[in-house]
Amino acid sequence: MALKLYVDRMSQPSRAILLLCKVSGIEFEEVKIQITKSEHKSSEFAEINPMKQVPAIVHGDFKLFESHAILIYLASAFPGVADHWYPADVRKRAKVHSVLDWHHSNLRRGSAGYVLNSTIILAFGQPINPKLAAETEKILSASLAAIESFWLQDDAPFLLGNSQPSIADLALACEVMQIEVVDEKDRERILGPHKRILKWIEDLKNATEPHFDELHSIMLPVREKLKELKVQAATKL
Amino acid sequence: MALKLYVDRMSQPSRAILLLCKVSGIEFEEVKIQITKSEHKSSEFAEINPMKQVPAIVHGDFKLFESHAILIYLASAFPGVADHWYPADVRKRAKVHSVLDWHHSNLRRGSAGYVLNSTIILAFGQPINPKLAAETEKILSASLAAIESFWLQDDAPFLLGNSQPSIADLALACEVMQIEVVDEKDRERILGPHKRILKWIEDLKNATEPHFDELHSIMLPVREKLKELKVQAATKL
Repeated sequence: MALKLYVDRMSQPSRAILLLCKVSGIEFEEVKIQITKSEHKSSEFAEINPMKQVPAIVHGDFKLFESHAILIYLASAFPGVADHWYPADVRKRAKVHSVLDWHHSNLRRGSAGYVLNSTIILAFGQPINPKLAAETEKILSASLAAIESFWLQDDAPFLLGNSQPSIADLALACEVMQIEVVDEKDRERILGPHKRILKWIEDLKNATEPHFDELHSIMLPVREKLKELKVQAATKL
Repeated sequence: MALKLYVDRMSQPSRAILLLCKVSGIEFEEVKIQITKSEHKSSEFAEINPMKQVPAIVHGDFKLFESHAILIYLASAFPGVADHWYPADVRKRAKVHSVLDWHHSNLRRGSAGYVLNSTIILAFGQPINPKLAAETEKILSASLAAIESFWLQDDAPFLLGNSQPSIADLALACEVMQIEVVDEKDRERILGPHKRILKWIEDLKNATEPHFDELHSIMLPVREKLKELKVQAATKL
């Protein structure tokens, strides 16, 4: 049964589901939907996801959107996915759900909001929004602090005190990696104080090599492109 | 094994987990944590949920927070919960996850933000915030429209075209019911155009009677109390 992933590698939840497929050897077709070209807003794509967002999947005649739901579905429907990604044990699984749900209103909201309003909005031809960037940076920094003080524990490499990563590590780490596209000094201000998070990302890279690095190879050229747009926007003022 | 629910009936996700327990005959102890008295911010409660939010549960020696994760855990750990609340079928389950994930950034964000900034903020001794109320009302109205046009289907009473409700119906309907505490004219402006949603709430009430009405009996006295606070706040200006 064919699996199609409708994704944009610049979308952090898209990278999370690509990463799970790659590390688990799930065969799929990658259908690229470019957000900056508004391809997700087309009427054709609305047939795949009426909410007009990536990622979305089609597996045979089954359509699904929302990245956490997709991660859980892939881990449940494909027998080749190792248990640690989405444990069968009810309590371990509940903890994975807990961190994924927490993510929505905390790290996701802060990071996506900050990266958009400080930087990526330029790629949509709109000016940066310093007020919204400052507001969402607060949520982002509080979320990073909560990951360090609660979700990560000193003696274990992955979230929830686990020795092997779960789908929650994929979702949250791909979100943190989105910060790679902002200016170096901003990235350093935000991520610099969080050594434990940088160590966690490094551990996840090692556990998923070479796929994590391969999927994030897009970040550096995008950062350079966004820098150019920032210079152009400043010149226009 | 004892189950304790740490809840405030004024919290919509608290009501959702209370409702699942009541309709499924799960025995529990209700530990009331009053948000307006900041009881969720105490150091004792931080031992239950370090994120200092309700609801949270303790089941034997197992602690859990985030209401969707709790709903899934209860439906999975207690054999008396009927399958339709959280279907074992992987694809049906995936659709329940999809609507719950969508909820976080849409209905939940719009409704909780609107109700807080237009009304409930008075109970915390702060003035209403018309700008934030207007912004979140837009998200709320767009979410209600999406529920009507996509998540509900004409020929089935419950979300996802189901003939029986799932935990997603509980989570989203308890959220919509939070709008009961705002002024009648505001409630009518927001909910009035959405007859299909009002029908869905009515169907869920009938499917869960008498528990849905019993749990929401708190809304009317709270609305009256908030009206008084609004008059007092206006007099002070």
